[in-house]
Amino acid sequence: MELAIVQERIIPLSELDPVYLDRGIFFGDGVYDVMRSYSGHIFAFDDHIARFEYSLREIGITTVDIGLIREKIIDAFNRASIDDCMIYFHITRGSAMRSHDWDDDIEYNFFLTVTNLISPDPIKKTGVAVCSHEDFRWKRCDIKSLNLLPNVMAKRSAHEKNCFEAILFDSDGNITEGSSSAFFAVIDGCVVTRPLGREILSSVTRKYVELIAKDLGVTFIERSLTVDEAKNADELFLGVTTRDILGVVKFDSTVIGDAKVGPVTRLFEDTYAKIVRPTCKDLSAGI
Amino acid sequence: MELAIVQERIIPLSELDPVYLDRGIFFGDGVYDVMRSYSGHIFAFDDHIARFEYSLREIGITTVDIGLIREKIIDAFNRASIDDCMIYFHITRGSAMRSHDWDDDIEYNFFLTVTNLISPDPIKKTGVAVCSHEDFRWKRCDIKSLNLLPNVMAKRSAHEKNCFEAILFDSDGNITEGSSSAFFAVIDGCVVTRPLGREILSSVTRKYVELIAKDLGVTFIERSLTVDEAKNADELFLGVTTRDILGVVKFDSTVIGDAKVGPVTRLFEDTYAKIVRPTCKDLSAGI
Repeated sequence: MELAIVQERIIPLSELDPVYLDRGIFFGDGVYDVMRSYSGHIFAFDDHIARFEYSLREIGITTVDIGLIREKIIDAFNRASIDDCMIYFHITRGSAMRSHDWDDDIEYNFFLTVTNLISPDPIKKTGVAVCSHEDFRWKRCDIKSLNLLPNVMAKRSAHEKNCFEAILFDSDGNITEGSSSAFFAVIDGCVVTRPLGREILSSVTRKYVELIAKDLGVTFIERSLTVDEAKNADELFLGVTTRDILGVVKFDSTVIGDAKVGPVTRLFEDTYAKIVRPTCKDLSAGI
Repeated sequence: MELAIVQERIIPLSELDPVYLDRGIFFGDGVYDVMRSYSGHIFAFDDHIARFEYSLREIGITTVDIGLIREKIIDAFNRASIDDCMIYFHITRGSAMRSHDWDDDIEYNFFLTVTNLISPDPIKKTGVAVCSHEDFRWKRCDIKSLNLLPNVMAKRSAHEKNCFEAILFDSDGNITEGSSSAFFAVIDGCVVTRPLGREILSSVTRKYVELIAKDLGVTFIERSLTVDEAKNADELFLGVTTRDILGVVKFDSTVIGDAKVGPVTRLFEDTYAKIVRPTCKDLSAGI
């Protein structure tokens, strides 16, 4: 008789809950996104939805009514009624007996959480230490997929070195991005970051950093940086949806600037903080 | 209030079943293996267990008593009582609120299925068509992890071209392996396959192909092959745990040999078929 074991329980295969046959777990065959709210207002909702749609399309999940997903997210957000929350959601291709290929009539699985965010974030004041780590992810990091084991391993390695984040570098020695963040350097008053492409995620925070730079008259340069170039930068910062702009004060053993979050980073942080709050809608509209 | 949505159901977060918080689904943070039985006897049990242990160790899942896992697999196999079955099992790091890093006291999740195998396999007679596909997987393909989205996408692409398998090639144009198989060429009477390393899985079938080659006096060469070199080979074959040795008769638009499974492939197939059956234990022991 065909059967399954879930932890200690033996179950006839025919009685197994489809949750255990999710292609998300067998293959990481799904995509996700994370958005957050500030004072009861979801920031950059359309940007996150657009990116999620892109990820779905790129892995060939074609049966999702994105309007319905929008409604579900907004409904969940309203029901949760948490002013400063994180909204995580994923869609997997669906549940089926394990086989690499799938039937076209498979029905996708949807999952979402709305959770509290710690705010204000204490590490924003001090800035964080980061360390370099080889980027051994796949070649489609523009897809926000559930294949995140290399990210998880890099993050763990960083924490073991008392660092907040692992900054990934490719086989040419150029920085791609953080294991769960976008990476920026301030050099001679300009903001420098890796060009978009298949090697990095199209970060929503990055988009707003670029818009802020334009608004402030700061030159925004898209070019690759080696780890050594980054260590010699005037300032470094990260962009993370759930933490906004986060100053970097140490990279491996190199102290950045004077070990304090730099003035350009603070300017971007402050401007970002203004545009994300619904009370400052006018400024946001202006950008 | 913190909450979750599972498909259409809204659930307070505190009441959510931990199965939905499996790091296997959030990150593909787990490893798996697949073994099979022939006539009521599991083949290469220790090889699969050793590889599984290696994968666990490489991703830092350190709390598994492998003896207990062995017992669970054998118990499940005995209870299922299927002579020719496939045994799939995975361990994920455990269930927790989504965060890249994990707490050291997290408890792993175990899952296993025992299912029927179609045997004899009709495609073994005719051989299969395969096609080339860029290898865009991560840089640790020696770990049998749940991060399999690139494999899934390559397999889908192959099926869309009426091919059984996608043969992956790296950025140097060298073949690594199939999306779910090991790849072999027969050139001038020798069996040629990619050297083991981080770019490919340590295939159990490959190990037995090497042993058979030794036993038959066939030279076994570990070197990388370009797609073009492979197309000019005398014969090609795949190694898959659930399908043994499988002849390849077409690679992209190139017919291999005379479009029939070649004689060296058949020799390996026949020898393999003999060593996997418990009735031929002596021969197996001889190898």
